[in-house]
Amino acid sequence: MLHMKTVRVEKDFLGIKEIPEDAYYGIQTLRAYENFPITSYRIHESLITSVSMVKKAAAEANISTGRLSSHLGNAIINAATDIIYGQYHDQFIVDPIQGGAGTSINMNANEVICNRALEILGKDKGEYSYLSPNNHVNMSQSTNDVFPTTIHLAVIEQIELLLVSMQHMEKIFHKKAKEFDHVIKVGRTHIQDAVPIRLGQEFQSYCRMIHRDIERITHSYKKLYEINMGATAVGTGLNADPAYVSKVVENLSRISGYPLTSAENLVDATSNTDIYTEISGNLKICMLNMSKIANDIRLMASGPRTGLNEINLPPRQPGSSIMPGKVNPVMAEVINQIAFQVVGNDHTIGLASEAGQLQLNVMEPVLVFNLLESIKVMKNGFGVFSDYCIDSIKANESLLKDNVEKSIGVVTALNPYIGYEKASEIAKKALHSGQTIRSVCLNEGILTEMELNKILDTHRMTSPGVLSTY
Amino acid sequence: MLHMKTVRVEKDFLGIKEIPEDAYYGIQTLRAYENFPITSYRIHESLITSVSMVKKAAAEANISTGRLSSHLGNAIINAATDIIYGQYHDQFIVDPIQGGAGTSINMNANEVICNRALEILGKDKGEYSYLSPNNHVNMSQSTNDVFPTTIHLAVIEQIELLLVSMQHMEKIFHKKAKEFDHVIKVGRTHIQDAVPIRLGQEFQSYCRMIHRDIERITHSYKKLYEINMGATAVGTGLNADPAYVSKVVENLSRISGYPLTSAENLVDATSNTDIYTEISGNLKICMLNMSKIANDIRLMASGPRTGLNEINLPPRQPGSSIMPGKVNPVMAEVINQIAFQVVGNDHTIGLASEAGQLQLNVMEPVLVFNLLESIKVMKNGFGVFSDYCIDSIKANESLLKDNVEKSIGVVTALNPYIGYEKASEIAKKALHSGQTIRSVCLNEGILTEMELNKILDTHRMTSPGVLSTY
Amino acid sequence: MLHMKTVRVEKDFLGIKEIPEDAYYGIQTLRAYENFPITSYRIHESLITSVSMVKKAAAEANISTGRLSSHLGNAIINAATDIIYGQYHDQFIVDPIQGGAGTSINMNANEVICNRALEILGKDKGEYSYLSPNNHVNMSQSTNDVFPTTIHLAVIEQIELLLVSMQHMEKIFHKKAKEFDHVIKVGRTHIQDAVPIRLGQEFQSYCRMIHRDIERITHSYKKLYEINMGATAVGTGLNADPAYVSKVVENLSRISGYPLTSAENLVDATSNTDIYTEISGNLKICMLNMSKIANDIRLMASGPRTGLNEINLPPRQPGSSIMPGKVNPVMAEVINQIAFQVVGNDHTIGLASEAGQLQLNVMEPVLVFNLLESIKVMKNGFGVFSDYCIDSIKANESLLKDNVEKSIGVVTALNPYIGYEKASEIAKKALHSGQTIRSVCLNEGILTEMELNKILDTHRMTSPGVLSTY
Amino acid sequence: MLHMKTVRVEKDFLGIKEIPEDAYYGIQTLRAYENFPITSYRIHESLITSVSMVKKAAAEANISTGRLSSHLGNAIINAATDIIYGQYHDQFIVDPIQGGAGTSINMNANEVICNRALEILGKDKGEYSYLSPNNHVNMSQSTNDVFPTTIHLAVIEQIELLLVSMQHMEKIFHKKAKEFDHVIKVGRTHIQDAVPIRLGQEFQSYCRMIHRDIERITHSYKKLYEINMGATAVGTGLNADPAYVSKVVENLSRISGYPLTSAENLVDATSNTDIYTEISGNLKICMLNMSKIANDIRLMASGPRTGLNEINLPPRQPGSSIMPGKVNPVMAEVINQIAFQVVGNDHTIGLASEAGQLQLNVMEPVLVFNLLESIKVMKNGFGVFSDYCIDSIKANESLLKDNVEKSIGVVTALNPYIGYEKASEIAKKALHSGQTIRSVCLNEGILTEMELNKILDTHRMTSPGVLSTY
Repeated sequence: MLHMKTVRVEKDFLGIKEIPEDAYYGIQTLRAYENFPITSYRIHESLITSVSMVKKAAAEANISTGRLSSHLGNAIINAATDIIYGQYHDQFIVDPIQGGAGTSINMNANEVICNRALEILGKDKGEYSYLSPNNHVNMSQSTNDVFPTTIHLAVIEQIELLLVSMQHMEKIFHKKAKEFDHVIKVGRTHIQDAVPIRLGQEFQSYCRMIHRDIERITHSYKKLYEINMGATAVGTGLNADPAYVSKVVENLSRISGYPLTSAENLVDATSNTDIYTEISGNLKICMLNMSKIANDIRLMASGPRTGLNEINLPPRQPGSSIMPGKVNPVMAEVINQIAFQVVGNDHTIGLASEAGQLQLNVMEPVLVFNLLESIKVMKNGFGVFSDYCIDSIKANESLLKDNVEKSIGVVTALNPYIGYEKASEIAKKALHSGQTIRSVCLNEGILTEMELNKILDTHRMTSPGVLSTY
Repeated sequence: MLHMKTVRVEKDFLGIKEIPEDAYYGIQTLRAYENFPITSYRIHESLITSVSMVKKAAAEANISTGRLSSHLGNAIINAATDIIYGQYHDQFIVDPIQGGAGTSINMNANEVICNRALEILGKDKGEYSYLSPNNHVNMSQSTNDVFPTTIHLAVIEQIELLLVSMQHMEKIFHKKAKEFDHVIKVGRTHIQDAVPIRLGQEFQSYCRMIHRDIERITHSYKKLYEINMGATAVGTGLNADPAYVSKVVENLSRISGYPLTSAENLVDATSNTDIYTEISGNLKICMLNMSKIANDIRLMASGPRTGLNEINLPPRQPGSSIMPGKVNPVMAEVINQIAFQVVGNDHTIGLASEAGQLQLNVMEPVLVFNLLESIKVMKNGFGVFSDYCIDSIKANESLLKDNVEKSIGVVTALNPYIGYEKASEIAKKALHSGQTIRSVCLNEGILTEMELNKILDTHRMTSPGVLSTY
Repeated sequence: MLHMKTVRVEKDFLGIKEIPEDAYYGIQTLRAYENFPITSYRIHESLITSVSMVKKAAAEANISTGRLSSHLGNAIINAATDIIYGQYHDQFIVDPIQGGAGTSINMNANEVICNRALEILGKDKGEYSYLSPNNHVNMSQSTNDVFPTTIHLAVIEQIELLLVSMQHMEKIFHKKAKEFDHVIKVGRTHIQDAVPIRLGQEFQSYCRMIHRDIERITHSYKKLYEINMGATAVGTGLNADPAYVSKVVENLSRISGYPLTSAENLVDATSNTDIYTEISGNLKICMLNMSKIANDIRLMASGPRTGLNEINLPPRQPGSSIMPGKVNPVMAEVINQIAFQVVGNDHTIGLASEAGQLQLNVMEPVLVFNLLESIKVMKNGFGVFSDYCIDSIKANESLLKDNVEKSIGVVTALNPYIGYEKASEIAKKALHSGQTIRSVCLNEGILTEMELNKILDTHRMTSPGVLSTY
Repeated sequence: MLHMKTVRVEKDFLGIKEIPEDAYYGIQTLRAYENFPITSYRIHESLITSVSMVKKAAAEANISTGRLSSHLGNAIINAATDIIYGQYHDQFIVDPIQGGAGTSINMNANEVICNRALEILGKDKGEYSYLSPNNHVNMSQSTNDVFPTTIHLAVIEQIELLLVSMQHMEKIFHKKAKEFDHVIKVGRTHIQDAVPIRLGQEFQSYCRMIHRDIERITHSYKKLYEINMGATAVGTGLNADPAYVSKVVENLSRISGYPLTSAENLVDATSNTDIYTEISGNLKICMLNMSKIANDIRLMASGPRTGLNEINLPPRQPGSSIMPGKVNPVMAEVINQIAFQVVGNDHTIGLASEAGQLQLNVMEPVLVFNLLESIKVMKNGFGVFSDYCIDSIKANESLLKDNVEKSIGVVTALNPYIGYEKASEIAKKALHSGQTIRSVCLNEGILTEMELNKILDTHRMTSPGVLSTY
């Protein structure tokens, strides 16, 4: 931007600035660009298309109420459509973390659409007396309804992609649960040997968690269908024609394809952000669950010689620059890290949400930045975790079976027949002598082989029930 | 406990210990008491009654499957009932933060009930060969189904009390919203003067948030009706008679009065704790909202001479040991502090939840401790906040009205008639000259007095709409 | 309090209240008690003795500047001394979580000391015209210097106890590091088998972490020696005689035994709370470290048959109400839970600290409540963890040795001689064939037995170095 | 990468892959690139230059111990130097969030340097039998010493830039503190009017906080000078020649310009990450402080007509797309948002740190990603906040003076002369009648005008002291 030769001069109530002649953004965008060189990242693509849908829907509504001429309005509509179809995204130059509650994003959109529309109208960029970013593109709007609505659309879009990825992951886990349904292993509580369980039961339990996460996220994100267009500055709807308000929501539903409705209370919808903390909270719960799953998988895959060695993960890359042949559970490790990221992002989102004051929460930029980051890393991570890791897990069946045979925990099945105290003695004797529970029972003449065959049937132990006779 | 003269000796598989003769708890409780002198607090009362309900329901079920004699079973039932009715609570001496996934709480209950039952049966405390904490009181159970179920019951009970308190708070806010519906004031975005709003609209927006919080918490806590009784050690139901499993849930529903059902997947229900993070997450969202409300109220009440001074809070206590006559918004301040506590507790709960491993989450004690603490401080805080603060707020109506008249933000209403740029000039002129918007317009001959009366009608500005003619 | 028959009537500028006649607290305490029924806990004992030290030091200073008569002043001094020595603590009835920035704690102290002093002076409780909580006990003071100073003293006292407990823990870890110095085991990265390490090296590394934590906490808490007595309401020192200011700090140093100094900038010291977030931050780091240690110990102790089984923890209590003979790593589990609690408390403290506004942080009550809770649970937890767990850990030396022999990771030592690629092939072959690295090398004729004896000397592998010849 | 026609084939122990012929990275980098499409961001530039410095220092050390030929070694050195000087950065394609504890970053560096060195040596890319990423570039190294050392260098570099920006900010605040030293205003506690203070005192208190933050961060980051080169895989130094170990640290000190030393205990330095949590903790404390400052500044600047209106911030951009003439405190708002981001990042870092297991913390990639993000947004934010906001703040002196005159809080100065109770009455009377404290005193004949002139001298009230006579 520094060596631009040809510039145009733009003006706002704070003064004038030179804008690169070929830029579609204008003076307010440039001010914001200079004020907020914070992250150096670009705003999320979905915010760019979403805000353009909002502008298009508003222009249509303003035409229909007669407050905007078709001539100017159609140029705005066409310009917005260009952006929805992926053009001019490089003109959105404001930083995701910015002061001003999203005004800079809104004005960036107003200016780019305005200048593109001027171009369509055969005018020069910057001829705002003919078509103005504030009076025409932003007509009947305020940042305080445009930006929350934009966030809603962007988050809906991204969450729906995330859900696809979660459903895929659930399916893969379900497949493995069935595949491992017959594999008996030592269950563990306190990571100490406990009673037998089937590997398939463990994977099924992961499935259930993921399923609940899908339900939770689905339940929450649909609340985003309620938008606050028409709220204008503080939710009271000042300067918004009631006919416009119902039209803009209707138009935006059609344009976005989402069943949008007008929020019941626009003051509330403009000032409060608990819907975002709710969604982020559910992303966080999901990742706490996923981190538990990743931890389990890494633990079960520990080895290959001196760990639990219960399952083998597909090798994805050499694990060490120094240790030859080493393979690490990298796909699970990245899930843990995504979890930590999402939990941290949720913390940021909570702080931002709490910081709302009176009629507005000006911390929305950092809030939505973190929300979209969370969704992105989850979506991306789930894809590779499902396909590159879970899908190809193999069980070390024979080792798992041997372990069950030699484990102490099977003594629990004796409780109903000989009592907890006697069983404790047997357990202690087995542990110290290195014998199996079965051997101790036989050696001590506590139960017969036939009885033990029934009672210590490890497959039976993985389902409810007590033997009535044995 | 140190100077007890008369003791009995109890034994477990780790050895023997002397127990104060009059103690109802036994050797395992004492071991836990000595192992975990962490917080010095007692476990929550609701855990004591809830675990006793579980024990009662289990004994009934064990009698009905014929695995427990009525003679012994009824003694257990009566002993548990005593505790449900508030007796022997001082015998629950284990610390809320404890290793062992709640085994110590479960064994504390098993031992107290056992010894009380022995007493009922005319036996001495400690005669476990006659009636045993493990074999009889804990029959068909494991800590890993008893403790989660106990947590469910306790949290349900406490959340229901919390909801009563929230509904009361919502009602009070609603009352004030109606009371203040006519009070016009300056709305603020970025805590900078914006366009007019009605104080009632602000309070109504608080109402809506609280209402959503009630809905969120209600939606979540009902999931606790699914319990995992019958899961035993790892969710597979080892040693649990299927007839017992359905009976125990049925009995517990009757005893507790909650519509309990058996969890669809007991392995999942035993190892995973996302229901708690979900509930805690919703408590956190509620408190982020409440903190925002408290901040607004403190800000609006700032003064009395050099703050916003929009509302007056009822004086509850002298505010300063040195500044005479000073009164502070202490009831709102305590809400902020409760918010910080609950958010911190949620962090703890998230960490505990993530730390589950394989078939069990051994961090449940610290998890439920924090969950019940959060509910308690919220319930208590909402009561005093509603009754001692919100209910008696008064609006400084005339000052609020004067402020609207002199504010610059009303210029926004001129946009549709004169455009954003012209309106900006007027705003600037008003600001620098100290005039009102009305005066500048009149002085500059921009609009007539009649036009201004319509356009600058502040009450009209607090509802949607643009004048078609003026 | 409900059935008190005999009362006295007290008055403040908000009105009158009946106080139980035998109560030493007065009207402002009672108001606070009624306003804040939040946690139902008592404030920490150390706050009670600390605030009394402050009052004593202030009274001495006020006598020495001639603003307080010796007659009244000495009664205050004696009353405060009674409390320092443990009397009247039951008269401190305000809740730890309270609105008002600690005014209620300060007034609780002012009133109790005042009434006890009146008693000493032969007057009736409540005769405030003779001796007043505000004019005499609180003379030259404000809550805004008294409460921060009180917090400083209380936290210093408790941190010093914590440090004793940490030094003990470091010593125990050091002892075990030496005891295990010769025990060679498989080191693990990514919880996958890596190259050999000595168990003593692992314990020494825990030692180092704890040592750094001691240093961090020590470095921070000493900053608390700077106090803000003399700041009065907003740090400007209004109504505080400069002679008093230097005297009160001097007196308080003598009374408390800490080398206190006056903060360089009293406005800063009154409004800002970063010293608490710094201390809490260091407690948090310590507990993140301790949680890692607890996780390692639980992992190494996993088993007894199908886990890593590297070390044995002393059995502290039966681990299961259903699984006979089971013993769990409960003392390590409680360390994890304390970590989660302290990390959550730190979150609360951070929120409270950020919420300071202008000349005061009114959130100090919840801040100090959490800070003292963190210190308490750490101190208590470290004691039992050191003595009941770490001190008696035993290593399974022979199993550890066997594991090293059969592990693949030792192949790394071949790198300098045969290169990473060749070594990778050997590793792969060993893994798939079930052989040891040594066998593959011998079988394939890659290295001689003598060479292998040198290169694969596992003890040598646990120290830096490459063989120059072999 | 998709339409590359010309490829070379590379091989590792997991198989072969096609690499774009012009790519300097190799097979392991490509595997990592495919495995971890998580954030879509690039790793921080400072990691790229830092890892190259490590490689250069190691090559020099390996030459000096005679284990690497000068011919190959010098090619490595030259290749690394190219990267240090900014070339080939586009070849670092692995994602910042990645499984594998940084192995992928290390291997990305090994491969790029190797292929660039091969080019220098006149060989083809991929001729690893001539010069190998593992055997030569990574000689005597492991990811587990290379990556932590790289992090240290990168964080040192970035923290030093941050500190420059903080010192600049401190200077600006100091300048304003002096500029505002004479400006008397109403001090506020509980955001309620309290006693007078000088605006300069407030800014000086911000200065002090920032100064402490500089000290804290400086104290911590210097600990990064201790590095763990020579630790290799698990800190035991396997395969690292002791002569190499001392050389590599010496070389790296020279190359980086930092006074690096070898960590006292390499096992500890390899497995533990508390130095990062410590640094991040101090960044967090800094941002909690900065958020408090930003809140104060936004509050003091509230208005322009109906807020506190104590100070004016320089207008940086139009504040609203709908409200003409509105200007918002956007530069302060962005500081709050940066605070929320950094606090959230610290949460992530804490989680990552706690998740270390045994000899390694595999979560380091997400940890360092967040640490560098925090430093970046702070550095960037402080620059614009200092220069675009703080530096040009103006005080509304006359309004501030008027406010002091009319405030009730000045009554506090009467305490020493008439007592708290009498002063409370006066305060109450002033408040309800709308009079000033001075008027009430005069009207009621409580003090003479001359006395009041002395006692109510507002400038005197902003320093310690009580009048001895009046």
